[in-house]
Amino acid sequence: MAERITPREKDFSQWYIDVVLQARLADYSPVKGCMVIRPNGYAIWERLQSILDARIKETGHENAYFPMFIPDSFLKKEAEHVEGFSPECAVVTHGGGKKLEEPLVVRPTSETIINAMFSKWVQSYRDLPLLINQWANVVRWEMRTRLFLRTTEFLWQEGHTCHVDEAEARAETLRMLEVYRSFAEDAMAMPVVTGRKTDAERFAGAVETDTIEAMMQDNKALQAGTSHYLGENFARAFETQYQDKQGKMCYVHQTSWGVSTRLVGALILTHSDDQGLVLPPRVAPTQVVLVPILKKNVDSGALREAVEKLAADLRPVCSVKVDDREAYSPGWKFHEYEMLGVPVRIEVGPRDLAAGTALIARRDTREKATVPMGDVAAKVPALLDEIQVGLLARARERLAANTHRIDAYDEFRSMIEDPGGFFEAHWCGKAECETKIKEETKASIRCIPFDRDEEKGKCLYCGEPSPGRVVLAKAY
Amino acid sequence: MAERITPREKDFSQWYIDVVLQARLADYSPVKGCMVIRPNGYAIWERLQSILDARIKETGHENAYFPMFIPDSFLKKEAEHVEGFSPECAVVTHGGGKKLEEPLVVRPTSETIINAMFSKWVQSYRDLPLLINQWANVVRWEMRTRLFLRTTEFLWQEGHTCHVDEAEARAETLRMLEVYRSFAEDAMAMPVVTGRKTDAERFAGAVETDTIEAMMQDNKALQAGTSHYLGENFARAFETQYQDKQGKMCYVHQTSWGVSTRLVGALILTHSDDQGLVLPPRVAPTQVVLVPILKKNVDSGALREAVEKLAADLRPVCSVKVDDREAYSPGWKFHEYEMLGVPVRIEVGPRDLAAGTALIARRDTREKATVPMGDVAAKVPALLDEIQVGLLARARERLAANTHRIDAYDEFRSMIEDPGGFFEAHWCGKAECETKIKEETKASIRCIPFDRDEEKGKCLYCGEPSPGRVVLAKAY
Repeated sequence: MAERITPREKDFSQWYIDVVLQARLADYSPVKGCMVIRPNGYAIWERLQSILDARIKETGHENAYFPMFIPDSFLKKEAEHVEGFSPECAVVTHGGGKKLEEPLVVRPTSETIINAMFSKWVQSYRDLPLLINQWANVVRWEMRTRLFLRTTEFLWQEGHTCHVDEAEARAETLRMLEVYRSFAEDAMAMPVVTGRKTDAERFAGAVETDTIEAMMQDNKALQAGTSHYLGENFARAFETQYQDKQGKMCYVHQTSWGVSTRLVGALILTHSDDQGLVLPPRVAPTQVVLVPILKKNVDSGALREAVEKLAADLRPVCSVKVDDREAYSPGWKFHEYEMLGVPVRIEVGPRDLAAGTALIARRDTREKATVPMGDVAAKVPALLDEIQVGLLARARERLAANTHRIDAYDEFRSMIEDPGGFFEAHWCGKAECETKIKEETKASIRCIPFDRDEEKGKCLYCGEPSPGRVVLAKAY
Repeated sequence: MAERITPREKDFSQWYIDVVLQARLADYSPVKGCMVIRPNGYAIWERLQSILDARIKETGHENAYFPMFIPDSFLKKEAEHVEGFSPECAVVTHGGGKKLEEPLVVRPTSETIINAMFSKWVQSYRDLPLLINQWANVVRWEMRTRLFLRTTEFLWQEGHTCHVDEAEARAETLRMLEVYRSFAEDAMAMPVVTGRKTDAERFAGAVETDTIEAMMQDNKALQAGTSHYLGENFARAFETQYQDKQGKMCYVHQTSWGVSTRLVGALILTHSDDQGLVLPPRVAPTQVVLVPILKKNVDSGALREAVEKLAADLRPVCSVKVDDREAYSPGWKFHEYEMLGVPVRIEVGPRDLAAGTALIARRDTREKATVPMGDVAAKVPALLDEIQVGLLARARERLAANTHRIDAYDEFRSMIEDPGGFFEAHWCGKAECETKIKEETKASIRCIPFDRDEEKGKCLYCGEPSPGRVVLAKAY
């Protein structure tokens, strides 16, 4: 099976599609731009959801659910918002066999419908902060789609919060960006650069957008999560006001933040290889697969028993699957679980049984080791940690090795093509230079990094004074 | 607060709305027929989801996600299906600023789009059974809506499976109905009658529909879950075929089954009272709330410490919340948590602290008991079990007490109005009688119960021979 995956070196885009389709993570659907998330892909999304949902709740947020239909007029209440999202909307014009009086838009994001409720729920400073999250499907009409990375309908979570003032709302924006950063690094083993978007790249309707940007194996950037400070923009549009301690009516200050099923694509593009999927143990639906090497016409009772005992020992410490199907050969199974990215495979054959050993194979490095059967349960959790840490370390090395400080535009134009990567360059702050660079190189300013050095310089494009370096890259 | 709830005796419908709104479970939205599920309501849905999802997975099913848009032509491929669902559909006619070549329907249920994928994925008998579940939002245009019970958009799970033959598919249909039955009774403490729907009440496109029917406190029936044997209906429409062991092409036999957010409404209508929500402990987001009785201007350090210790002891065995807010009085809090249906409330005041005791209050019976502080952690799990068992027992008694065998139509017409309930009556099997009864009494045949006695009789309506009794009731 593995032979059928196009090698990354040959055609990176095709490799990605091959991994998604052959690991049965997703499939094309008959509906233009929409994908089907197959069980193997959905199980990864469930892992991501469960870890992130716990962190969202730990930080005091509660889940809720709002209608997916939004009256067309709502979208129009915030001027930048409608301009940004209206062209991407799917519109319901008929319902129950009749033409609707007012068309309904399928939510591309929910600030408007949620503010219509917030304005009802928020009365007093005692009602604040209001910290809400929603797991939902959203629709943005896309011309060019890619499995997981860009689809017309996708799944995501969207946080929406209300605060008494700007300081508290800005702190929330950063707090949730930090949740995303640590989630990306700790759970997904995916290092990110954190920073602020330029005005051109800001969320339509936000005052400020912060982002986590990851580097994929082809050195392109992937925006993995964003957190917006919305100011009073939506509050004013929907009259979301509260009475403060002195009895004065004030607009709430708001945030919104989201990550989506594109993270499954990000996982693949960060860790996988020419044999298929590679999953960090913390997000792997199955962490360990046990494969007894069954021989035809040989009684395998004792072998099955030993493997079942091993599985029972492992279940309290990791998620385990036993594949003792006789219709598939051991070789077929090895390929299959490499394709599916199961972090650890344990093989036990008749000889192992006789010797009291098992063979442990790591998916990430493809190393194998023979260990005493009695040591397996104690060794596996440490091995899973080692794999997790190793994947993050390798991704970090790759990010560092492919991040370049650059001052000459010619050199930038050459290097952005080959080898690509993240480029730290000076920018004067003018939208004009940003646009020109994008037109000429297809690279965009991914963010103004939070940790940039205080260093004055000259704009990469126009040579005018610049207050510091921004990160440029081609992006998904 | 509790005073504001309309008593059940006075106006049962208004009581239900009062509980939903005052416990902040849901709210009306500005989108006609669509509700907002607020955090208190969504947390209950998450509990239901998590328990049911585990059972769906234990029975071998995997979660996946399919597009919510369905090409209009797909719906038309199964004749009964389109007739049943087409009038209820929301239709997307425009996307990305352009009129679509073919309108897209927002899924009212997903048999068609899923079969379009199944026909691609199923090739051989080795691919069977194919056992898929989806958690999703669906839309059915409704004229008369009610919070949770009937809304235009709702959340649900829909299982879709393919099997080699009728016997296996029928067994799956019953297996999933049994999952629903045990889930309703074990988790929701809601007893149900299981049986088969008549042809008139069958799912559009199914060969047979099985159902679980619960009795609400106003003696009306609520259809709480259905499981359909679809035969080859959708397989033929979408060419979902497999090659059997002999190499012959065969249509798969299918099932589908679902429960929705209406279960939250069912929970309320089964257990709640004039003080607000009553939740069975197994589905309660918070099982125990601890309220320290704080006095103004009195140092509460030792009291807070004792309550925190109690909470720490309880956390390993149940879900606990401590409410030590000073802005709200103990009395306000007692009302609040009664309204929210938290099964057990524990109060600790300065006198309790001195005496080394705590007061435990049950939400269901509103009984209180003073117990030694040291015994609380050991007593609470047993108490939660007792509450769970007690709620089921009371609901069972109510179901039994309000189920009547009836043979005279006049008597039925009178009793269906008052006191209402489930009526076991003979029915000849003719749709005509079923329709007439419904027209004249608003009662429908809820199901032909699986456990009905073998008893010949005469049709309640026409007096013709009947093979056995069916269950009639007015229904939500």
